Amino acid sequence: MNVTDVIDRPYVIGIDIGGQTTKMGIVDMRGQVLSQTVIRTDSHTDVNDYVDDVAEALDKIIKESGSEGKIRGVGVGAPNGNYYTGTIENAANITWGGNKSIPFAELLSAKLGGLKVALTNDANAAAVGEMTYGAARGMKNFIMITLGTGVGSGIVINGEVVYGHDGFAGELGHTCAVRHNGRQCSCGKTGCLEAYCSAIGVSRTAREWLTLTDEPSVLRSLDVISSKDVYEAAKEGDKLALKILEFTGKMLGQAFADFVAFSAPEAIVLFGGLARAKEYLYQPIMDAMNDNLLSLWRNKIKVVFSQLKESDAAILGASALAWEL
Amino acid sequence: MNVTDVIDRPYVIGIDIGGQTTKMGIVDMRGQVLSQTVIRTDSHTDVNDYVDDVAEALDKIIKESGSEGKIRGVGVGAPNGNYYTGTIENAANITWGGNKSIPFAELLSAKLGGLKVALTNDANAAAVGEMTYGAARGMKNFIMITLGTGVGSGIVINGEVVYGHDGFAGELGHTCAVRHNGRQCSCGKTGCLEAYCSAIGVSRTAREWLTLTDEPSVLRSLDVISSKDVYEAAKEGDKLALKILEFTGKMLGQAFADFVAFSAPEAIVLFGGLARAKEYLYQPIMDAMNDNLLSLWRNKIKVVFSQLKESDAAILGASALAWEL
Repeated sequence: MNVTDVIDRPYVIGIDIGGQTTKMGIVDMRGQVLSQTVIRTDSHTDVNDYVDDVAEALDKIIKESGSEGKIRGVGVGAPNGNYYTGTIENAANITWGGNKSIPFAELLSAKLGGLKVALTNDANAAAVGEMTYGAARGMKNFIMITLGTGVGSGIVINGEVVYGHDGFAGELGHTCAVRHNGRQCSCGKTGCLEAYCSAIGVSRTAREWLTLTDEPSVLRSLDVISSKDVYEAAKEGDKLALKILEFTGKMLGQAFADFVAFSAPEAIVLFGGLARAKEYLYQPIMDAMNDNLLSLWRNKIKVVFSQLKESDAAILGASALAWEL
Repeated sequence: MNVTDVIDRPYVIGIDIGGQTTKMGIVDMRGQVLSQTVIRTDSHTDVNDYVDDVAEALDKIIKESGSEGKIRGVGVGAPNGNYYTGTIENAANITWGGNKSIPFAELLSAKLGGLKVALTNDANAAAVGEMTYGAARGMKNFIMITLGTGVGSGIVINGEVVYGHDGFAGELGHTCAVRHNGRQCSCGKTGCLEAYCSAIGVSRTAREWLTLTDEPSVLRSLDVISSKDVYEAAKEGDKLALKILEFTGKMLGQAFADFVAFSAPEAIVLFGGLARAKEYLYQPIMDAMNDNLLSLWRNKIKVVFSQLKESDAAILGASALAWEL
């Protein structure tokens, strides 16, 4: 980007599309969110109606922040978002997205008077956000791992997100963590890292272990166990909860060692709800990763946690894409 | 590179350093090896003496091919070669290389009157060679897997070899193929892909299976079993040999699925002695890979075999690096 551009148009828009809600905000070059808002994603089955809602909501926050005519571009993080084509592909968990290819960047750009729109999946957006505003500032080679409902990833090599031949690179949540008799994953395969180390994976571990052992635990009293419950129990010193998080960290660390063998990153950056449990995950991750690394990398690869304010992070990640337009 | 350069200096030198021998040759832009020679790598313990030998041998083939003053640069493929630093790091299987960092590119360049020297490991060199002259021409995203004594890899993303933060990216032979009770690998870890799918891995599989079963096989009559013996036996229809190669292909295919999840390549390119057994490896690789891929990639990723003449391939791979100088 050149200096004149930045002076004339010092703001970008970040839009994070989730299955239930869509967060959007106006962001400046320092990563300050000037104004933000949220709309429902799932109140429409037609993408055109949804795009109308997005444009209307944006109009409000553009006016609110006094950034009319000063927007440089729009970055969108969306499930199954393809950077090359600007499309959202077969996004099963989006009411208007399943089983088709939606030219979302094009639709939104047209609705916003031709403003440029860049789109990618949420984990890639998080990686760009972390590189632009967060824990990966100054890093040229790192791997972003998002620990949310699923396990997502964004890989940065030489300062650029890896999109691969088809735009879908970086599906590390679906690499194999358990080869034989692995858990069924939502993707249809078995044994994926996501089936063990996502928020859902952690609650599955809890349920399995409660069934398989007689170990006392405060988790036994709960009907439904979330990964947050496990984290809260761990903070109270619950031994089973601590073991569950240790196991989760170990599975992550083992997987990270293989990721390092691929791209030799400076660091692995963790983000997402489950990453809040960092005081319990960090050491098991480091131990398992170092045990499984070639000696040339042992004790040299950093594991760091996102520094972005959680409420802003999704918007910041998406917005960061727009600086590269 | 610009046109004037190519007209003035239309040749490059490729040097492939192995533990026992060093192959070198003069190569033109079409990948024709004009002249080549071989010297011992292991006849010296001091790298300076070795570099003297290399320079002397090069001098002969430069004169032989009439390329004095027409050499653009030198590409070197070497074990533990680091592209960023031009050093060979702790190369245990090189008589003059163990347990130290050798500024090889600098030493050789000085000896060759300042000719530019690029250096990387042999698998990365093979990837550049395949992209420049071979099966990966026109591809921007692919993964090179070399099946030799070890399992090496060179990863190409957006037309560039991935070197990572430290220059050592692409050690896919040391990703985990068997998590529990895996075979001891030469790297010190257990369960590495290399311990199963290298030439040595294949002969280990043969020995293990001959011990564990009573299955008749022509391999039983051999004192020492090489991967070549297994391949020859398979060609004669030996059932155990066929099963060994099927197992090897399956292990490779499973691993490839995880590699695809990382960088979404157009193809995986196989090279090396064991890749000669392609008629037995191909189908098990494809089946196992597709069984383990996310549906978005299923039946879309190619597995191809090197098209470089085997006697020239190591020199061509190394030489291709020099075009980028």
